[in-house]
Amino acid sequence: MVRNAQDAPEVGELTPPDRTLMGPGPSDVHPRVLRAMSTPLVGHLDPSFIELMNEVQELLRYTFRTDNQWTIPVSGTGSAAMEAAIGNVVEPGDTMLVPTNGYFGGRMESMAERAGGEVVRVDAPWGEPLDPADVEAAFDEHQPDVFGFVHAETSTGVKQPDVPELTGIAHEHDAYVIADCVTSLGGVELRVDEWGVDVAYAGPQKCLSCPPGASPLTLNDRAMDKVLGRENPVRSWYLDLSLLEGYWGEERAYHHTAPITNVYALREALRLVAEEGIESRWERHLDVARALKAGVEAMGLEMNAPDEYWLPSLNAVRVPDGVSDGEVIQVLLDQYDLEIAGGLGDLSGDIFRIGCMGYSARPKNVSYLLSALGDVLDEKGAAVDVEVGLSATSDRLG
Amino acid sequence: MVRNAQDAPEVGELTPPDRTLMGPGPSDVHPRVLRAMSTPLVGHLDPSFIELMNEVQELLRYTFRTDNQWTIPVSGTGSAAMEAAIGNVVEPGDTMLVPTNGYFGGRMESMAERAGGEVVRVDAPWGEPLDPADVEAAFDEHQPDVFGFVHAETSTGVKQPDVPELTGIAHEHDAYVIADCVTSLGGVELRVDEWGVDVAYAGPQKCLSCPPGASPLTLNDRAMDKVLGRENPVRSWYLDLSLLEGYWGEERAYHHTAPITNVYALREALRLVAEEGIESRWERHLDVARALKAGVEAMGLEMNAPDEYWLPSLNAVRVPDGVSDGEVIQVLLDQYDLEIAGGLGDLSGDIFRIGCMGYSARPKNVSYLLSALGDVLDEKGAAVDVEVGLSATSDRLG
Repeated sequence: MVRNAQDAPEVGELTPPDRTLMGPGPSDVHPRVLRAMSTPLVGHLDPSFIELMNEVQELLRYTFRTDNQWTIPVSGTGSAAMEAAIGNVVEPGDTMLVPTNGYFGGRMESMAERAGGEVVRVDAPWGEPLDPADVEAAFDEHQPDVFGFVHAETSTGVKQPDVPELTGIAHEHDAYVIADCVTSLGGVELRVDEWGVDVAYAGPQKCLSCPPGASPLTLNDRAMDKVLGRENPVRSWYLDLSLLEGYWGEERAYHHTAPITNVYALREALRLVAEEGIESRWERHLDVARALKAGVEAMGLEMNAPDEYWLPSLNAVRVPDGVSDGEVIQVLLDQYDLEIAGGLGDLSGDIFRIGCMGYSARPKNVSYLLSALGDVLDEKGAAVDVEVGLSATSDRLG
Repeated sequence: MVRNAQDAPEVGELTPPDRTLMGPGPSDVHPRVLRAMSTPLVGHLDPSFIELMNEVQELLRYTFRTDNQWTIPVSGTGSAAMEAAIGNVVEPGDTMLVPTNGYFGGRMESMAERAGGEVVRVDAPWGEPLDPADVEAAFDEHQPDVFGFVHAETSTGVKQPDVPELTGIAHEHDAYVIADCVTSLGGVELRVDEWGVDVAYAGPQKCLSCPPGASPLTLNDRAMDKVLGRENPVRSWYLDLSLLEGYWGEERAYHHTAPITNVYALREALRLVAEEGIESRWERHLDVARALKAGVEAMGLEMNAPDEYWLPSLNAVRVPDGVSDGEVIQVLLDQYDLEIAGGLGDLSGDIFRIGCMGYSARPKNVSYLLSALGDVLDEKGAAVDVEVGLSATSDRLG
């Protein structure tokens, strides 16, 4: 049956539920960012948009703590920025070293292979960071050209410590370092230049609290020289940085239509970062997440990661014995309009993943989360003391 | 110098100029769509979002005139949908036949080569459509596996007629047909199923008047069988339809974070299509563009394309002798806040490209365009009669 005009589907007004977003992302979007998205468009080659692109690049550099010229929003969600990083830097014949300690190392592997690279692995269990000694050993054994690691593993709530040590090892072996900063940019201390990260990418819908659609990417000159010196073109035209360079670089030549509204939104989200100050913002995330952690622990629950590599923007909390994580998550969504998530991969069923990112990293959200989670766990028969938890959190929140 | 928190760039409030968009896209966005973009987010795996995805798919099928199950918005701008189409359907070793009569045939070529395909060409001058006899001859000579053509060439203002004849030739040769409908979907008659198009893609920022960021794509079962039967994985992880199938298909499994706000916007833009009725919408575009064309011709200017393949959504108007297209375009932007564009490639300097798409395809916009363009051309010494042009347009707009 071929459709005709009489078949027009009847679809009602857009009225999504009013969720509180405390999962692994997206986080709650700041009202100023939402408002920016309703701004009428200018063309993607309009001189006023060119100026706005410069501002976004400058704000991104500030947030990444870098002076890299090649700092742009990629026209897609975080995975597009990830594939832009890997697909441009990894050439056919290159070897890329990837981690096995979480979901996103696996994705790096898949992208590197599709780019024509060989993949070798450095192992650590899910829920633990990489050990620099293991990275050193992997370098000695495999001599990889590119080393990817995840600064903030959204799937496990683990922050990779010792970043300068890892980049040091890579550079001693003349390799390029690609860091997944999807869940750290704008919320967790990250110093691209000082730490010697060659390429970093992020998602806007995590600690920047911006709707997904234009995703931060930065490359230093050394990495960009490799990209511009490739023998074979990048396997994706859309994500080819040598072409994007024409649009985001000095020439401002047409490549593809930028997602104008998403660039507006990112600009506003980054203005909020600049107003708060990047270091104050890291502090705020830490303070609010510490209050969340204190409450969770006082209530009788256990964090999955020890303090040493706990990731404040994504809190992995052990699911109490005898409780079904899926049921708890469902009740929180249905009865409290509150989103959190369960574990993935090796940690499936073992952890709740509770985000504390950007505009969601607020006392109000944390108190609500604590009380809702406590009540539901109590209802499901877990041994939790909700009052004690709430009180520990409010003590912390001052 | 490594940046510190004191370096925060000072970037002011978002206050872009208030343009009237009558170029090759983006077009003016409908206020309801802008408003939809300021809606707070739900998660990309929220049951309410899954329902919304179903609605968007249903509305896209209606707009494409198709029953194809595999009808989705790709998470990127139009070129991402284009590369999703070509990069999934074209396998290493396949031969793709592409047109040479405009800018976007060249882009098809580049994408097909990056996908590992061989490229052969069917020629026509810029500003003219393909001749079915030439397509037939190219099939006989090269036996391509995939045939791409541009239904509405944004670079030349040419509508490809005889689509069912072209798809018939391709199918007699067991090839797959990919149609670029970036500037036709929602504004120019397009019947994917009835015309035998296997794969079609579009941009949201043209006749759908939706900000760019989530882009329509549809594949019939025959094409999707080819994609799912590939021996080698698609060269982009982000655009791999066999993985996207898990998210947009029955399983609704996580692949990447969808650009939630862009999906909200697309839903609202497609609701407007359904409310208007797709056939009425084609009529409206034709009526308003005819009025534009009548005015332009009465004023003393010449259309580049004859009626037979004139593209109502993108009007290529000859630049009068002795006039610099760039100067006119600049004055229109600076003094009238009005965006139109010049020619590309072989038509560079020869034509103005004037869009008449979606919410920009309104009497108000056309009258404004006519009077502004007429005044500026008159000022620049071209032989135009603005009054006669305006009167011809208003007669048409009745």
